[in-house]
Amino acid sequence: MSSSTAPKKIAIVGSGNWGSAIAIHIGEKVRKLKGQYDEKILMWCREETLDDGSKLTQVINKQHENVKYLPHEKIPDNVIAEPDLCESVKDADVLIFVIPHQFVKKTCDQLKNKIKSTAFALTLIKGFYVDEQTNDLMLVSQLIKNTLNIPCVCLMGANIAHEVAEKIFCEATVGSRDEKHSEIVRQLIDTPEFRLRFYPDVEIIEMLGALKNVIAVCAGFADGLKAGFNTRAAVLRLGFREMVNFCRLLEKESTPELYLESCGIADLIASALGGRNYNGAKKLAETNKSLKEIEKEDLNGQSLQGPGTAKEVYRFLEAKNLLDKFPMFRDAYLICEQKLEPKKLLENLHNHPEFQQK
Amino acid sequence: MSSSTAPKKIAIVGSGNWGSAIAIHIGEKVRKLKGQYDEKILMWCREETLDDGSKLTQVINKQHENVKYLPHEKIPDNVIAEPDLCESVKDADVLIFVIPHQFVKKTCDQLKNKIKSTAFALTLIKGFYVDEQTNDLMLVSQLIKNTLNIPCVCLMGANIAHEVAEKIFCEATVGSRDEKHSEIVRQLIDTPEFRLRFYPDVEIIEMLGALKNVIAVCAGFADGLKAGFNTRAAVLRLGFREMVNFCRLLEKESTPELYLESCGIADLIASALGGRNYNGAKKLAETNKSLKEIEKEDLNGQSLQGPGTAKEVYRFLEAKNLLDKFPMFRDAYLICEQKLEPKKLLENLHNHPEFQQK
Repeated sequence: MSSSTAPKKIAIVGSGNWGSAIAIHIGEKVRKLKGQYDEKILMWCREETLDDGSKLTQVINKQHENVKYLPHEKIPDNVIAEPDLCESVKDADVLIFVIPHQFVKKTCDQLKNKIKSTAFALTLIKGFYVDEQTNDLMLVSQLIKNTLNIPCVCLMGANIAHEVAEKIFCEATVGSRDEKHSEIVRQLIDTPEFRLRFYPDVEIIEMLGALKNVIAVCAGFADGLKAGFNTRAAVLRLGFREMVNFCRLLEKESTPELYLESCGIADLIASALGGRNYNGAKKLAETNKSLKEIEKEDLNGQSLQGPGTAKEVYRFLEAKNLLDKFPMFRDAYLICEQKLEPKKLLENLHNHPEFQQK
Repeated sequence: MSSSTAPKKIAIVGSGNWGSAIAIHIGEKVRKLKGQYDEKILMWCREETLDDGSKLTQVINKQHENVKYLPHEKIPDNVIAEPDLCESVKDADVLIFVIPHQFVKKTCDQLKNKIKSTAFALTLIKGFYVDEQTNDLMLVSQLIKNTLNIPCVCLMGANIAHEVAEKIFCEATVGSRDEKHSEIVRQLIDTPEFRLRFYPDVEIIEMLGALKNVIAVCAGFADGLKAGFNTRAAVLRLGFREMVNFCRLLEKESTPELYLESCGIADLIASALGGRNYNGAKKLAETNKSLKEIEKEDLNGQSLQGPGTAKEVYRFLEAKNLLDKFPMFRDAYLICEQKLEPKKLLENLHNHPEFQQK
């Protein structure tokens, strides 16, 4: 069998709550496709020792459930948790990255020259990096592409993990400039309960996915402060404008139509209705606890992406002397750090730059 | 004093909950402007006899509160409820229309030739008409303009009435092609708690304001059915796409930027978080009661705008044989009429035309 017709191998790099949810979804889907894809899917799982002394990968492979990060959801038995990173991606044709964005660099460095040259990556990671020295911005897809020397497409959208695992209807936007990759992602993921739309752009889609976590944090503050519905809507809209303006700053303008895709307004809305960043920020505004405490209490030690992104965005804008043009991004960071009272975010909306209309 | 420098007179045509809220806001604002506008504002109030036998206008003018439609909110005493329609607009320079859309035609017919020729209208009304014979669509602003022969601008946005009355932060979009009118609306309404942005378009802004009530109804059904956050976000996004596509159908395309204004995504979000259409639809999905019953129980007899607009939209699309392209608009109407189970709306999302992407 030539390599082009051999069943393609899928690896999932990551096994947090979103990683486990997409593993369930894809694990079930490939079984229905029969033949085109290898049914066996390796899912890299950073080994952890659980409270009872057992190993997380062993528990996943025995109980077929990620008891730590996505409890109560059955993982199909063709998905195998693999503690060895390089082993998990060996021979993979499609690498699906779904780890916290702060670990991407280290992970990619370990994978360098260890993957198939014909492979491509799909990132589900929401976040980017601002270089500590140069303050340049680097996207996860760029980092993967540059380090591993393979193409990288992305999938972003309104996809709260446990709802995906429970097959509650959702949609997502796939950013891909290559029809071949788009078609593989469609085959692996598109179902009547998880609908995809495709767009020939990667960077803006990824940027929106990352930036919306910062605005979800703002929405959490607003709701924690018991803001009205009009205000909550204004927080999302003005926040979305800051997201769009931030993309423009990077000369990464896309057609405005993209903003109305799942990766745009829908992802923002879902994240601001009940995502983790929203919930954490709401609790901060309600209780005055630090985010560290909240992550410990509610997230089993996983860290929120929104506050991390807020910090990167703040650093980027500060270096460019643009903080005043992005008051919500600015305040989000300061409030996360408990350097500003949450109510200031709402007060500062009154004179948002959007209203200095000529 | 020449008429151009005489203090301008404002009339508010309508006194439901949104009418009373904007009357409070403008009543307070004109007092601060001193001189440019006549402080005394007449608010037309269709006379009603309350349960205790008293007249609504008399109660408003004595207690300075619209006890029936916006209880517990103080109306400033320069706002006078006037039961005589023609009397209320006599000499007015600015006529602010804020009545249920089904009464606009009759009201305008009564006002014909009874208003100042130099006046202009501002409509806050969300709705439009589809002619029973021709199935042509007519906007409220067009009806006002054509019947009264004065220009008509509009204001739409995320403005849940009681929050405006309580000075909870909100924003809105003003659609006006005339700088002079824009400036007057800014003076009368813009405050740090109620921010305006201006856009040189009237029709699309009005269309969005009307259509979003139908999607708010859909959001209410979804939440009444306990849909997940991903699904709720998809309902809003796919609904918004139907709104945009409907505007295109009428060759009323604007720049896509407009969709990101308050009259676009923000109005939709606020209405889908807690507006009256949302609440009524949610109750229908939860209890299976008819909307008639729900309006009686919860709205003191006022009628919801969303179901009325859904009916007009349905009729318009049916006549053009386009119902299949707008499944949410179609299903919203059928569910309001209790001709379709609410859960069908969600099932039909799986194969929404948006996903038939080439």
